[in-house]
Amino acid sequence: MQLKNDLLLRAARGEKTERTPVWLMRQAGRILPQYVAVRERVSGFIELATTPELAAEVTIQPVDLLGVDAAIIFSDILVIPEAMGLPYEMVEKRGPHFPRTVRSPEDIDRLKVADAETDLGYVLEAIRLVKRDLGGRVPLIGFAGAPFTIFCYMIEGGGSKTFSKAKKMLYTEPALSHRLLQKITDSTAGYLNAQASAGADLLQVFDSWAGILSPDQYRTFSLPYLRQLCQAVKREAPATPVTVFAKGAFFARAEMGALPCEVIGLDWNVDIAESKTLIGPDKTLQGNLDPCALYASFDQIRQQTRQMLRAFGPHRHIANLGHGVYPDTDPEKVKCFVETVQEYAGWVD
Amino acid sequence: MQLKNDLLLRAARGEKTERTPVWLMRQAGRILPQYVAVRERVSGFIELATTPELAAEVTIQPVDLLGVDAAIIFSDILVIPEAMGLPYEMVEKRGPHFPRTVRSPEDIDRLKVADAETDLGYVLEAIRLVKRDLGGRVPLIGFAGAPFTIFCYMIEGGGSKTFSKAKKMLYTEPALSHRLLQKITDSTAGYLNAQASAGADLLQVFDSWAGILSPDQYRTFSLPYLRQLCQAVKREAPATPVTVFAKGAFFARAEMGALPCEVIGLDWNVDIAESKTLIGPDKTLQGNLDPCALYASFDQIRQQTRQMLRAFGPHRHIANLGHGVYPDTDPEKVKCFVETVQEYAGWVD
Repeated sequence: MQLKNDLLLRAARGEKTERTPVWLMRQAGRILPQYVAVRERVSGFIELATTPELAAEVTIQPVDLLGVDAAIIFSDILVIPEAMGLPYEMVEKRGPHFPRTVRSPEDIDRLKVADAETDLGYVLEAIRLVKRDLGGRVPLIGFAGAPFTIFCYMIEGGGSKTFSKAKKMLYTEPALSHRLLQKITDSTAGYLNAQASAGADLLQVFDSWAGILSPDQYRTFSLPYLRQLCQAVKREAPATPVTVFAKGAFFARAEMGALPCEVIGLDWNVDIAESKTLIGPDKTLQGNLDPCALYASFDQIRQQTRQMLRAFGPHRHIANLGHGVYPDTDPEKVKCFVETVQEYAGWVD
Repeated sequence: MQLKNDLLLRAARGEKTERTPVWLMRQAGRILPQYVAVRERVSGFIELATTPELAAEVTIQPVDLLGVDAAIIFSDILVIPEAMGLPYEMVEKRGPHFPRTVRSPEDIDRLKVADAETDLGYVLEAIRLVKRDLGGRVPLIGFAGAPFTIFCYMIEGGGSKTFSKAKKMLYTEPALSHRLLQKITDSTAGYLNAQASAGADLLQVFDSWAGILSPDQYRTFSLPYLRQLCQAVKREAPATPVTVFAKGAFFARAEMGALPCEVIGLDWNVDIAESKTLIGPDKTLQGNLDPCALYASFDQIRQQTRQMLRAFGPHRHIANLGHGVYPDTDPEKVKCFVETVQEYAGWVD
C-alpha cells in the first residue's frame, strides 16, 4: 500500500523533504492515558506486548493522539533473549528481571538461534495488524536491541548502573563473549528481516548500554555486530532503511558514520554540529532534544525545538528526543514538540 | 611537615617526575577486608565517616596495604547538604536517601551556608589526624561534590537513572536553580579551603552527574560554579592544586581546559589522545583505566595499564581508574595495577 506520509523514509534515504519528520522514542505507551486504559485490561506489560491486537492498538494511539509522522511497534528489546530460551519478567517499577542468566559455555550452548516466524510470530502478527489498520497513514518502525545491549541483560539478569558482571565477562572471557554475541546477532538479523517482511518500513537498532564501554571495547564487542545486522538487512530487505541509536557512544561517532545504515540516532549529550562533522554527510541524523526539555513551558519547548531544528538544518534530519520520552511527561507538551517541528517555517531556501 | 613522596603534587603542578603517581578513587573502603573489619564495629557508613579516629584509620589503610601514592580522606560528598540543613541516611545496598528534599523557594531560604569549622569539624579533625599519622609518607587529598551534583541529590532525594526531578527544576525554575547552586557553591568553597587549612595537600571536586546534562545546560548550570570553586581555592589556598573530575562531561573537555585548576580527571569512555588535544597542555590529566579492567587476569591488567601509561605519556599524568574502584574487585588486582604503574620503565628519555 502506498504511504500517504512517507517523510520519514525519504528523510532516511537522504531525499529532500518539504519538512522535517518527527516521532518520539517510547511514544507508544506510558505517557498516554489511552495506553494506561488498555494496560489495565491485562495482567502486565508482557501480556500486552505478546497480544497482537492490543500491541497494534497501542502502537497506533500516538499517531491518532500526537500526530507523529511514524508509528513504532509496541514491543521490547528483550523478546530476543526470550526467543533464544532465556525468559524474563517485567517487575513493576523495577524493570526487567531474568530468573536465569548466562554463566557458562554450557548456558550459551543451550540457547538457540531464534526463529522469528515460530518464536516471535506475535510481533510479526502485530506488525501486520498495524499496517492494515494504519492504512498507509504513516510508516511503521520495527526494532531490536543491539547485540551488546542484549548481551548485557543476559549476563547481568536485569538493569544495572555499571553492568559490571557483563563487562567482567568481556574482560575475562572474550572468546565466550564473542560466541554469545554472535548467537544474539544471528537471532536478531533474522528477526529484523522478518519484521521488514511483515511490513515494517524502517528498522531501528537500540544500543542502549553502549555508553558503559571504552572506545576500544566498543570497537571490539559492539560495532562488528551492529555492522553484521546492517549488512543482513541490506542483503535481505535492501529497501528498508536502518537506524542505529547507540546511547552514550559519543566516542564512536566517526565509526558510526561508516556503518552500512541510513540513519544515526543522537542522544542529547552530543553537540549537533560536531556530530554532523564526525558522522559525515552520508547519514541522516535523528534526535536529539533532551527529554527533560518537555518539562519546560510551552514557549520554552517551542524555542528549544526550533533551536534544534536550525542546528540540524533542513535535510537529512528526523526530529526526535535524545532518549525515550519520560513517563511523567504531559502529552500536551509532547504535542507541542511535534507541532513545532511540523509547523516550522524557518528554512530559507 | 616535608612530604617524603610528593609525586602527586609535582605531577599536578606540571613538574617532571621520575615516574607517574598512582591512586584510586574509592580506594579507602569497601574493597579492603581491613576496612570491612572497622566498618563492622560501627552502626553504619555515616557513623564511620563522622568519627574522626575511624575515618582517619580507614583513610590510611590503602597507603599501607596497596602502596598508593596518595591518601584520600574517607568521607562523602553529601556532607555538604547535611551541613546546609538537609540530612541524609545511607540505606544499605540502596545508597543515600534524603527524607526531606528541596521543593520550593522557602526550602532554599531555610538552608544555611555551611560553616566548615562548626558544621564539618569532624572532617577537618579527621584530616588533621591523617596528616599526623601519615607522617609525610604521601600527600592527602581532600574533596567535595560539584555544586550541580549536590543539587541533583538535594532535589531528587537520592540516586536516580535520569535525575529527571532535578533536571525538571533546571528547565522550569532556572532562577531558583541558580539560587540553590550559589548557596551550595558558597558552602563548598569554604569547605574546600578549610580542608586545605586542616592539611589537605590537593583538593578534588567530583561532578558525578555531569553526564546527564546537555552541553548547553552544563555550560549554564555546572561550569560557572566549578569555576567559582577553583577561584576560591586560588584565592585562599593558592598552593593547593585542584582536580576537577566531571564524569560523562566528554562534551565539555575544551571548557575544562580553561578552568583555573591544575588537574582534569577523565573517565574511561574518552580517548586519551583526543582528550589531551581538547584540554590542552596546561593541565595534568588523571585517569582513566576502566574499573572493570581489574576483573581481568594479572597479565591483562599489566598490559592494559602499560597501554594507558603510554597513551598519556610520561608527564602531567596521574594514573587512576576512570571511576571509583568497584566493590567486588580483588585487592590483589588493585595492587597489580598500582605496582605496574610504579614499576613502569617504558619511557625513552
